Amino acid sequence: MTAPRTPKIPYGGDYNPEQWPEDICDDDHRLFTRAGIDTLTVGVFTWSLIQPAPDTYDFTVLDRTLDRAAAEGRQVCLATGTAALPPWLAKRHPEVNRTDFEGRRHRYGQRHNFCPSSPAYREHATALASRLAERYADHPALLAWHINNEYGGACYCELCAEAFREWLRDRHGSLDALNDAWWTTFWSHRYTDWDQIEPPNALTEHWRGPDHTAFQGITLDWFRFTTDALLGCFLAEKEVIRAHDPDTPVTTNFMGTFRPLDYHRWAPHLDFASWDNYPPLDAPPTRPALAHDLMRGLKDGAPFWLMEQTPSTTACRDVNPLRRPGELRLATFQAIAHGADAALYFQMRASRGACEKYHGAVIGHAGRDDTRVFREVAVLGRELESLGDRTLGARTPARTALLFDWDSWWALEISDGPSRLVKYVDVVHAYYRAAREAGADVDVIPQSADLAPYDVVLAPALHMIKGDLATRLEDVAARGGTVLATFLSGRVDAHDRAFLTDVPGPLARLMGIRVDEWDARPPEFTQPVPELPAEARLVFEIVLPRGAEPVATYGTDFYAGTPAVTRNPYGDGEGWYIATALDQPGVDEVVRRILARHHLLGPYADHPSVETATRVAPDGSRLLFLLNHAPEPARLTAHTTATDLLTGKRVEQGAPLVLDPLGVAILQ
Amino acid sequence: MTAPRTPKIPYGGDYNPEQWPEDICDDDHRLFTRAGIDTLTVGVFTWSLIQPAPDTYDFTVLDRTLDRAAAEGRQVCLATGTAALPPWLAKRHPEVNRTDFEGRRHRYGQRHNFCPSSPAYREHATALASRLAERYADHPALLAWHINNEYGGACYCELCAEAFREWLRDRHGSLDALNDAWWTTFWSHRYTDWDQIEPPNALTEHWRGPDHTAFQGITLDWFRFTTDALLGCFLAEKEVIRAHDPDTPVTTNFMGTFRPLDYHRWAPHLDFASWDNYPPLDAPPTRPALAHDLMRGLKDGAPFWLMEQTPSTTACRDVNPLRRPGELRLATFQAIAHGADAALYFQMRASRGACEKYHGAVIGHAGRDDTRVFREVAVLGRELESLGDRTLGARTPARTALLFDWDSWWALEISDGPSRLVKYVDVVHAYYRAAREAGADVDVIPQSADLAPYDVVLAPALHMIKGDLATRLEDVAARGGTVLATFLSGRVDAHDRAFLTDVPGPLARLMGIRVDEWDARPPEFTQPVPELPAEARLVFEIVLPRGAEPVATYGTDFYAGTPAVTRNPYGDGEGWYIATALDQPGVDEVVRRILARHHLLGPYADHPSVETATRVAPDGSRLLFLLNHAPEPARLTAHTTATDLLTGKRVEQGAPLVLDPLGVAILQ
Amino acid sequence: MTAPRTPKIPYGGDYNPEQWPEDICDDDHRLFTRAGIDTLTVGVFTWSLIQPAPDTYDFTVLDRTLDRAAAEGRQVCLATGTAALPPWLAKRHPEVNRTDFEGRRHRYGQRHNFCPSSPAYREHATALASRLAERYADHPALLAWHINNEYGGACYCELCAEAFREWLRDRHGSLDALNDAWWTTFWSHRYTDWDQIEPPNALTEHWRGPDHTAFQGITLDWFRFTTDALLGCFLAEKEVIRAHDPDTPVTTNFMGTFRPLDYHRWAPHLDFASWDNYPPLDAPPTRPALAHDLMRGLKDGAPFWLMEQTPSTTACRDVNPLRRPGELRLATFQAIAHGADAALYFQMRASRGACEKYHGAVIGHAGRDDTRVFREVAVLGRELESLGDRTLGARTPARTALLFDWDSWWALEISDGPSRLVKYVDVVHAYYRAAREAGADVDVIPQSADLAPYDVVLAPALHMIKGDLATRLEDVAARGGTVLATFLSGRVDAHDRAFLTDVPGPLARLMGIRVDEWDARPPEFTQPVPELPAEARLVFEIVLPRGAEPVATYGTDFYAGTPAVTRNPYGDGEGWYIATALDQPGVDEVVRRILARHHLLGPYADHPSVETATRVAPDGSRLLFLLNHAPEPARLTAHTTATDLLTGKRVEQGAPLVLDPLGVAILQ
Repeated sequence: MTAPRTPKIPYGGDYNPEQWPEDICDDDHRLFTRAGIDTLTVGVFTWSLIQPAPDTYDFTVLDRTLDRAAAEGRQVCLATGTAALPPWLAKRHPEVNRTDFEGRRHRYGQRHNFCPSSPAYREHATALASRLAERYADHPALLAWHINNEYGGACYCELCAEAFREWLRDRHGSLDALNDAWWTTFWSHRYTDWDQIEPPNALTEHWRGPDHTAFQGITLDWFRFTTDALLGCFLAEKEVIRAHDPDTPVTTNFMGTFRPLDYHRWAPHLDFASWDNYPPLDAPPTRPALAHDLMRGLKDGAPFWLMEQTPSTTACRDVNPLRRPGELRLATFQAIAHGADAALYFQMRASRGACEKYHGAVIGHAGRDDTRVFREVAVLGRELESLGDRTLGARTPARTALLFDWDSWWALEISDGPSRLVKYVDVVHAYYRAAREAGADVDVIPQSADLAPYDVVLAPALHMIKGDLATRLEDVAARGGTVLATFLSGRVDAHDRAFLTDVPGPLARLMGIRVDEWDARPPEFTQPVPELPAEARLVFEIVLPRGAEPVATYGTDFYAGTPAVTRNPYGDGEGWYIATALDQPGVDEVVRRILARHHLLGPYADHPSVETATRVAPDGSRLLFLLNHAPEPARLTAHTTATDLLTGKRVEQGAPLVLDPLGVAILQ
Repeated sequence: MTAPRTPKIPYGGDYNPEQWPEDICDDDHRLFTRAGIDTLTVGVFTWSLIQPAPDTYDFTVLDRTLDRAAAEGRQVCLATGTAALPPWLAKRHPEVNRTDFEGRRHRYGQRHNFCPSSPAYREHATALASRLAERYADHPALLAWHINNEYGGACYCELCAEAFREWLRDRHGSLDALNDAWWTTFWSHRYTDWDQIEPPNALTEHWRGPDHTAFQGITLDWFRFTTDALLGCFLAEKEVIRAHDPDTPVTTNFMGTFRPLDYHRWAPHLDFASWDNYPPLDAPPTRPALAHDLMRGLKDGAPFWLMEQTPSTTACRDVNPLRRPGELRLATFQAIAHGADAALYFQMRASRGACEKYHGAVIGHAGRDDTRVFREVAVLGRELESLGDRTLGARTPARTALLFDWDSWWALEISDGPSRLVKYVDVVHAYYRAAREAGADVDVIPQSADLAPYDVVLAPALHMIKGDLATRLEDVAARGGTVLATFLSGRVDAHDRAFLTDVPGPLARLMGIRVDEWDARPPEFTQPVPELPAEARLVFEIVLPRGAEPVATYGTDFYAGTPAVTRNPYGDGEGWYIATALDQPGVDEVVRRILARHHLLGPYADHPSVETATRVAPDGSRLLFLLNHAPEPARLTAHTTATDLLTGKRVEQGAPLVLDPLGVAILQ
Repeated sequence: MTAPRTPKIPYGGDYNPEQWPEDICDDDHRLFTRAGIDTLTVGVFTWSLIQPAPDTYDFTVLDRTLDRAAAEGRQVCLATGTAALPPWLAKRHPEVNRTDFEGRRHRYGQRHNFCPSSPAYREHATALASRLAERYADHPALLAWHINNEYGGACYCELCAEAFREWLRDRHGSLDALNDAWWTTFWSHRYTDWDQIEPPNALTEHWRGPDHTAFQGITLDWFRFTTDALLGCFLAEKEVIRAHDPDTPVTTNFMGTFRPLDYHRWAPHLDFASWDNYPPLDAPPTRPALAHDLMRGLKDGAPFWLMEQTPSTTACRDVNPLRRPGELRLATFQAIAHGADAALYFQMRASRGACEKYHGAVIGHAGRDDTRVFREVAVLGRELESLGDRTLGARTPARTALLFDWDSWWALEISDGPSRLVKYVDVVHAYYRAAREAGADVDVIPQSADLAPYDVVLAPALHMIKGDLATRLEDVAARGGTVLATFLSGRVDAHDRAFLTDVPGPLARLMGIRVDEWDARPPEFTQPVPELPAEARLVFEIVLPRGAEPVATYGTDFYAGTPAVTRNPYGDGEGWYIATALDQPGVDEVVRRILARHHLLGPYADHPSVETATRVAPDGSRLLFLLNHAPEPARLTAHTTATDLLTGKRVEQGAPLVLDPLGVAILQ
């Protein structure tokens, strides 16, 4: 199953009429029409309203909302609303509240507050989902099911401990196997009964927070268990929905590069992926792009939904800057360029109270349609209408893959040594950014994915090597492709046990090197790398070439002159190893050399502020998105003759092509 | 009732002879006499000594202390000593210990450690107060009652939860009203039973500490409840004191700009205000001045007591600088200039042990009278003796008011968005400082106060607008006054719900503007404001004038040229709006323009280090305090002919008037 | 009893064959032989393996390890392995898990996880130690007993509370005495029953963590109790070992300047001292040297063992730099120069899993002997072989003593005022460094030690003065010696009560000064001291000379011109007082003046990077260690004719003597 079929990009977002007097709906729909809003996400936080008591359901507000939507010709993405407990349930079954990392049972409050192992929660949540499915499966407004909301967090209660033990028993089979996997003989931890195993937290294996654990093995398995425990909640709801509604696509909204959950474990169970895009402050545009491509990679390249973004500001951060004129449009087309087939906001109307009352909205507290933000939303709505279905279902023809692996992320960041300052996503992003800014389309894929389509495979900080991955990477090189790995790639097996071979373990043969030792230094220290326009930082592996040739070397210290970057001929291809955290210009240079070998540099690679992205529509037509992230015009020379879908204008090959500040073109 | 009537400014402070062998009292009184000490605060921490067991009272130490004081001709401010539990009470009734924000029931330790809702605490504390009142009501040394000490903190136990629910029932009447006030439909929090409501803390609605709450409404009500719960303890003690002693004035020592308690809710119940002045490190002199004026504003301008200050150093801070020669005298006269009718120290003799043993004292561990600090204390004692009653009962004839509102403080600082970096007191202080340094006397008053006496009303960061305040502010302008509001003024109602109108809500008409959106930036970013000698930071509201004229504009970004400061003619007066956090020179310029319009600039406004303050004595004589905060002499030209009460010297209008470094003059 | 007698310096370290398949032992011993490894620390974390259930012991792995060691001619330091609980014990007796500072009972995890007051732990640990002693007392490989591991931490459970109360009863005798000692009348804390006393922690007397306590007295006693409680565990194990093995020396591995435990209370109970050397990042070489000398001082100058150091990197820090070529050798000879009679590593073979898998090891994951680190270890092994017994049993002939006092450390760092920024070890280290870099051998000794052997006694930051110390210091000066004290020396008695005399209390007479007040400033403030090549910071005591003469003065502020450094003639000697935190050049200048007076400047005092240390071998031969800490050669002129034990080369007095970069010589 895929994302819902629609005649145009669904446009709209989270809508909470239940918070308002009825008459405000008239205003809302009037404004929706003015702004081209056709899709509403409904019911995300209505549990306490539609089930005010254990045996009482009252669907009035949802009936009204869906009926009105249908009457107005709008579609609804209907949430099951199980992400925030109603007060009565928390009071009646205290065990539905989570126990936190510090071992404290919470009482009622906030959202994302349910214990995933609690039978009472599971029972009540699925009962609610079932009733909703039964009632609305055939509603004319129903477009998609939205289960729960932004799954995340963890619970450390006794129920979860018991569920964890069960999960471990399934996974490891025997205590001997588990003791071996976790290397429990270290520090006298050999378990002799499953009951002895406690969830890893501040009262057991951890200190200084979630990243410092005595045993990486138990913490890693706990992260996997947590992923599966919440997935179990999702699957239970999905099952009861399917019992009443076999056809409507089901999703839940993800959060991009979100560490707590391994979305690759979830991906097979979604009908389509969707996610909420709130880029970190001052992030370069490749940061949300990485998340888009990661989300697209969940379903093997199928289009996804942009389920949330703010039309103007966030509220939850210490500092919440405003999206400047044009930024919203640019970000929206960036999402579409990377595979989004829907563009939705949080939120349609600003909440009057509570912690998101200052979060941006299409309609502000004064209910106006003459604000700058509303105007931009409405203009964009008209553009999307005129774009129609031309981007829907299109796929990205990438020949470059980047391996993204939650297990490596977790293993790297919960390890002691060599440096706590190395952050997985920072390393991954540096290589992704280099490839993207050089004009290459990139698929961000799990390590288990088929590598056949790719000329270039990037494996930055791929700390853990599982299964036959090393062989499959060798195959890429053998047939002429290029594989890149970095410092701290290839260190541990699936249980976070060091490989008992030279570093980088199973990648050593492909990389043609051996690493015996590694240095680490404070962040203010920089190591020159004379052959590159670059300096290096944080970690410095000392490489002994075993077949590989040095590409660049360290400039100082006792390992001066030893390789910082190597290239190893392998079959018809190459293995590249980057032994240190190069700064961005260094990563750029290395990646561009690799891409150049495969003719994968984009036509506008010399314009750093211009992002390009290609999608191939179901009819085979090739769409080239041009996105100017600079506040100045971008003056290009058209590399081919094409028509801009947004303006209808034709541009000739070799003719000047000017993008406005923050401007967009979709060349067909 | 007012502060005690005395023939001169009471001078002395906290005195703990119970910590010492008896013979040390002789030394103490000898030194007191030498230093002009006539007032002793006694009994603040004697509970465990005078009630060593549930049924055993032993007043020996207090008897001795008061009798000796009387014999020596000194007065006593007698504390009830209920701020620190005796160990036996904590052991016998564990529920008298507080449960903290993290949900942890404390065991015995520290001070300020009692649960305000515990019947056992209430019962024992009032019994003690009652016995004290009975015993000492007619003691010749008794000057004032000092209930408890520095009330503060909160308890989150089940007893407090129950009391909170009762308080909410009284305040909101029905759950429907409460659900509406707190906007609980957001995040599915509609309560269906009062029992479902939990105190907002780390286990319920909060994350990242006390300022981050999912529901501002519940946290705001919790702050109000906490204020009232502690006030209830105060009132219970006061009631039993009054049963035995109808006449002696009662106070408790406040802490100036202390966020946890809304002192305006307490003010009606005090006979007179008193407070402990420990300014933040490196604070400008307007910082303690703001607190003085706030304390004076509690009782409608009546004089207050300076209950504590250190003669030399604090101990509780990471770094505890020494008061340099002259600083103590200057700070003491500053207090008097702002309305203090007593000048007391913490402490008379340095503790030998425990955490305040390095806190400054009039008498140090060696018991000397030939230390610099003792000498300065003694010289000041003589000055106060010679000053006699000439400042007692005097009032400040301010025509400028600054609205100070705990609800706005709380609401602003527990809100998500636009910027966590905006601190209420910083904004308030900037405007206060501007007015004070321009020579204006300022009343710092609650928003409910009568505004009739004022030409200028400053309402910086007045986030919440309650009752008819907007109308009353309009009245000020209508009759020719000036009202100033700033960014983040006028946003929410009494329940922290956004006004469903243009920002600044009920102030929009008076300000003649409309604000649809606001930007926020990191603290290192500065926005030029070309028309002012100023830059702006943190928050930038984008103002659409609706009648107001721009006074200054933003210099950059897409909102360049839009107003940063506006002035709106209203009736015979004006409404000024400052849409951003101007730095101090910008605030100074704006405030001086407003004061100038009302001829409120002081005669020495061009001497930034010279503070002036006026008090009008009961006999109508006008006292002008001149305080030179610079370490250099201040060379002024006398604006009028007057006599300096401290030196007896006469100065002629137009003649040179020189203030010593850190010097003081009181011109009559 | 002393350290084990061996024919050469024991060389080797922690070895965990139980973590590996059996065949890896063959590789290990082959590599050990190649590297000159003759000593293995065994069994540190084997409890769960050798006692997998309450009634089941299985010594297979230890039998094998010791037998194999014996067969290979290696010695074993056998650990009792009681520092990490086996899971079954934690499950069966939950009370063996610790309750932390926050009052939370932990569940199973980590190491150092046992409650020292738990009878179940004590019983099981001693039973294990007894069985081990019974089994291996006569094993030919047994060289020493290693009880537990890196004792530390604390437990705050009810059992510990009860044990604390017992300890207090023993120490104080009566509640009156305790109330007086802790000064409980302050803040109404007079205890009337021992049961009212709670361990000081986050739920009782503390806030902002372990260093902020309302009552220093209780916290200080708690630290002493904690030291004794863990010592009790050690003694219980030692007792059962002695029952089976009266001869083999017993130790436990300390951690140098480790605040939580007063090692001076432990010292009498060790047969010999040993410690684990992991210097702070970027610490100067005097930092580990200070710890070496402190450890040597535990047993009155007797040699100690270097029980652990890393051959390459640590793993537990945020940033873990690599030991550069030569650094390991230099650090090892530094240990020997300061009195180490063994040189052991953590660890022989890198763990495959868990949190120390990236900690450096002699043998890495690949099992190679051709790594740089292995080669350096092996070269050093050969050097130690050739050195034979020539350094064994040698003692340091120091004439300079530095008083190191855990009570002062604790008292200083848990006090409020004057500055939390003063850190005891930083102050101590500054004076130690000055003396060491000037070439003086220094004994770091407890304040109770015999001072007769010393010409110079340094007492930096000796906050607490106990017993007759002041008199003994006066005796030093009286007979011509020099005593140095600093700011914050001489403030409190054994209960942390301020002396009721002039500061510096009992030291005032020897110092010839009086201090009434002290200033403190933020760290960025510096105070010039014109007479010295120095600036001062943090704390500035204002000194009134009472016999002493000023040596240097403050350059600014109201106390400009008053003394920052004084010298007081006393008998035939002098008392020096340093009233502020001089920077290192200032401390150097002062200390060198003092040393010069006693002809204690070393022959190479002008070469700051060259460390010298003297040991006198049992045969009376004098060994001068020269250690070049610079990465450049050190070009000296030999001060005497001697032979370098490492090279066998003879150097003539007055001839050039060149030390390689990081080079070492042992001149006899």
